[in-house]
Amino acid sequence: MKFLLEKTDAASLARCGTVTTDHGVIQTPIFMPVGTVGSVKGVYHRDLVEDVRAQIILGNTYHLYLRPGLEILKSAGGLHQFNGFNLPMLTDSGGFQVFSLAGIRKISAEGVEFRSHIDGSKHFFSPERVMDIQRIIGADIIMAFDECTPGTADYQYAKKSLLLTEDWLDRCISRFNSTEPLYGYQQTLFPIVQGCTYKDLRQHAAENVAEKNADGYAIGGLAVGEPTDVMYEMIEVVNAILPKEKPRYLMGVGTPINILEAIERGVDMFDCVMPTRNGRNAQIFTKHGTINLRNQKWDFDFSPLDPEGASYVDTMYTKAYVHHLFKAQEILALQIASIHNLAFYLWLVGEARQHIVAGYFCVWKARMVEELGRRL
Amino acid sequence: MKFLLEKTDAASLARCGTVTTDHGVIQTPIFMPVGTVGSVKGVYHRDLVEDVRAQIILGNTYHLYLRPGLEILKSAGGLHQFNGFNLPMLTDSGGFQVFSLAGIRKISAEGVEFRSHIDGSKHFFSPERVMDIQRIIGADIIMAFDECTPGTADYQYAKKSLLLTEDWLDRCISRFNSTEPLYGYQQTLFPIVQGCTYKDLRQHAAENVAEKNADGYAIGGLAVGEPTDVMYEMIEVVNAILPKEKPRYLMGVGTPINILEAIERGVDMFDCVMPTRNGRNAQIFTKHGTINLRNQKWDFDFSPLDPEGASYVDTMYTKAYVHHLFKAQEILALQIASIHNLAFYLWLVGEARQHIVAGYFCVWKARMVEELGRRL
Repeated sequence: MKFLLEKTDAASLARCGTVTTDHGVIQTPIFMPVGTVGSVKGVYHRDLVEDVRAQIILGNTYHLYLRPGLEILKSAGGLHQFNGFNLPMLTDSGGFQVFSLAGIRKISAEGVEFRSHIDGSKHFFSPERVMDIQRIIGADIIMAFDECTPGTADYQYAKKSLLLTEDWLDRCISRFNSTEPLYGYQQTLFPIVQGCTYKDLRQHAAENVAEKNADGYAIGGLAVGEPTDVMYEMIEVVNAILPKEKPRYLMGVGTPINILEAIERGVDMFDCVMPTRNGRNAQIFTKHGTINLRNQKWDFDFSPLDPEGASYVDTMYTKAYVHHLFKAQEILALQIASIHNLAFYLWLVGEARQHIVAGYFCVWKARMVEELGRRL
Repeated sequence: MKFLLEKTDAASLARCGTVTTDHGVIQTPIFMPVGTVGSVKGVYHRDLVEDVRAQIILGNTYHLYLRPGLEILKSAGGLHQFNGFNLPMLTDSGGFQVFSLAGIRKISAEGVEFRSHIDGSKHFFSPERVMDIQRIIGADIIMAFDECTPGTADYQYAKKSLLLTEDWLDRCISRFNSTEPLYGYQQTLFPIVQGCTYKDLRQHAAENVAEKNADGYAIGGLAVGEPTDVMYEMIEVVNAILPKEKPRYLMGVGTPINILEAIERGVDMFDCVMPTRNGRNAQIFTKHGTINLRNQKWDFDFSPLDPEGASYVDTMYTKAYVHHLFKAQEILALQIASIHNLAFYLWLVGEARQHIVAGYFCVWKARMVEELGRRL
């Protein structure tokens, strides 16, 4: 994987560049749709490429490990072959899901024992095991195994947790470096910066990972309940330390406004379930604010779903019609809202990029943040 | 609406023709995807036209009357405007749903009082009311309001029920003829032949409707639990009487084999929820038989979903992948199976048409029936 930093904004830390993987080139800043078990919920692969214009998607190691499982993934020749999505992919390390989804778990220095949220079966993830699993899944970019510290953790817990994550990172790197990719293309390992909401821990964490000379870095453990301003501050603290010539990936964030604020602070890559999950709950994002499609006010609104929208569904369907589909609990409603929101997110980061290139990012971003915050 | 009978098979009653409506031309035999509340479950309108190659879709009067309701449909300018589907549409009369879905109902000579299955609210359908409702929905082809006799009805009940349906038909025709379409294009009323599984009642019913000189005729009350052979016999009895120069629509039928058998017996139009409903339950139809995608045998089958399939999903996705999506309860599984099955049904009736044109229908049909009956 190679990152080329093309331009940094004169008035902010916003940057644009290209990430080159063996499965293709990604233009940053970029948003990565979440393909939990190898499918982006409710969206055909064709539409994801042609309509949403996704350049890279994310898979969840925890979910893929449980279903379809490693035997099937390996036999298929990796996730790209299994799901037929031939663009770059990234997998998380399973850390977040083990700590948020799985049943009773025991954390030790060695790793985490947990029970599947599906059938209660017992499993063990260690840094080495998670590297091996991600070799089998075969994403282009893979993540170090970390403890995802709860947002409410006190300083002592957060510090202890960070030390564990740092120890695990070394073990991840060691295992990664002593193994080969399985399917003939390169994989890249990103360390993750943890440290909860404690400035000195975040600094320590950023300095620690920066020393590893990785190809890119992730910022984890944010947007887990802390105030938005604290999240932005942590991004600033971390990005002041992370090497400028490497891509920075803010994990699991966030609203369109969060994304613009993070881009302004020098983040290059994003993923979040929000566009699809909120879409399935009838919330759609537009450049003039958010719309709750369950609201009765759309009953008789026969105007296009989003006249300026980036997806073909935006002009094919009306607000009244999609509102009706949500009321009638039709699957098509979930599909339309998901594809709309993903196309909107990809449009948003694409516009951010264009404005960075053109030198007007901050002016555009300030205007957008105002609009995006509205409820229509 | 005009029907042009183009050819009748030399060795059977199979026919092909064209139905011309103000929203376009339909080539028969044809299958009509069911768009219950104005959407074909899980399928984008674009894909329905471009991929499934649907030529006409069906809407359910009962469902549309309840949701979105007449006020919204009228304000939109009818169902075509409301859902943006600009091809021909057909609505049933609500008879079937009132008798199968709705809550406590009272049948009288006047009509049927029933309660909504959604909120228990009380409603009344009479033949006149149902004509008015279908004027507001605005489908190109609309159906007479009938009592859909239970498949288990004894002769006396079936006879009484048929007389009621015949009385209601006259009232439907009278109301239809004394009202105008609301949106500037023509609508056509099809009477429905009832009579349960009693040959003399079916004959009587067919003779009665044939006298009305309608533009087309529907055969209702079949595939409601009676043996398949009885259904085929009833189709034969009715089609021997219905005028040859008018299209015949077999309501709510059925499996791919049912459809070929009915085509052989002179039926021109079909609708059924089977391709979408069974698809959502992981059953897909192929030209070599049916596949249950939940079956563990597909775990490691990385061959295309249906190498000879008519839809783009057939070669984009593998059996193992779609099997995995069903196991993981992903929406995308329902979408893929729905679009595959609909494309298959449309392919099937298209092939039937081509073989009628070419003069080899019966040979082809016999071979297909053998293949279609297999479980893969």
